[in-house]
Amino acid sequence: MDALPEGWTGDAARIRRSFRFASFPEAIAFMVEVAFHAEAANHHPEWRNVYDRVEVELTTHDAGGVTAKDLELAAKMNAVHARLTRA
Amino acid sequence: MDALPEGWTGDAARIRRSFRFASFPEAIAFMVEVAFHAEAANHHPEWRNVYDRVEVELTTHDAGGVTAKDLELAAKMNAVHARLTRA
Amino acid sequence: MDALPEGWTGDAARIRRSFRFASFPEAIAFMVEVAFHAEAANHHPEWRNVYDRVEVELTTHDAGGVTAKDLELAAKMNAVHARLTRA
Amino acid sequence: MDALPEGWTGDAARIRRSFRFASFPEAIAFMVEVAFHAEAANHHPEWRNVYDRVEVELTTHDAGGVTAKDLELAAKMNAVHARLTRA
Repeated sequence: MDALPEGWTGDAARIRRSFRFASFPEAIAFMVEVAFHAEAANHHPEWRNVYDRVEVELTTHDAGGVTAKDLELAAKMNAVHARLTRA
Repeated sequence: MDALPEGWTGDAARIRRSFRFASFPEAIAFMVEVAFHAEAANHHPEWRNVYDRVEVELTTHDAGGVTAKDLELAAKMNAVHARLTRA
Repeated sequence: MDALPEGWTGDAARIRRSFRFASFPEAIAFMVEVAFHAEAANHHPEWRNVYDRVEVELTTHDAGGVTAKDLELAAKMNAVHARLTRA
Repeated sequence: MDALPEGWTGDAARIRRSFRFASFPEAIAFMVEVAFHAEAANHHPEWRNVYDRVEVELTTHDAGGVTAKDLELAAKMNAVHARLTRA
């Protein structure tokens, strides 16, 4: 697991990252945009929102651990987050 | 705490309910609609989505426990969920 | 074109329907849920929102007119609207 | 009307701008985030989405023309769009 996308931590079982936004609406917009990608890949995150934070955990249940699907979704989330929050 | 909205459990500190939907897009649509109410009330849930489920916890941090704000948001969530999932 | 889904009108070139909701957040939630279906089918509506209304026009540009893709998306929209607004 | 936000055109009756995004999900995410601001201000746009475009028209019906409410929402849309699409 030496190639996790930036900001992600974890092990062979699951990876996680906490994202922070400028506001609650921005956090919800993040979730909506990412949800399209999750649905298209039929690979859905476990995620928790509290106000301006979205905490994500990813694993591939069928495979019993982290797979390329998780790394792809993690990278996608990073890209959307970076775009949304760039100063 | 003998007057919790239907399906909610908890104590004086916090209340919780798990909602289930017919699909991931339906769960996300639920979150979007509820988010408008949360934002309007400036009272935001702690909620976790995994595929077709949304698990919610409500408390009022400033008050150190459950208040009318939580009961109102819980009732609103129940109403949106009931409307979304009625057969 | 004698088999349009309920509430839809139009001709061989395009079909249309106006949906009404109980509130602006409900209209937006409708659009979000329908958008997942549109994206999954790679077939996107032309739609206009003003407050509690969503006016939709459907056509299949590649085919130069209404196809089964439009009828399917129209039926899906009807189902989501019916679920959202049932009394 | 010499102080319209960048990209907006119009007259004393109404102002308009067309926004373009990298994808349909991004356009929908834009609409969701902006919708929170519209709802909070109780001032709602007339907007039309086709795939990666969102065409907006703003006016204040009660006042019979463009007011500060429209200019504020226009500026807010510009800010969200700029953030979403920055390279």
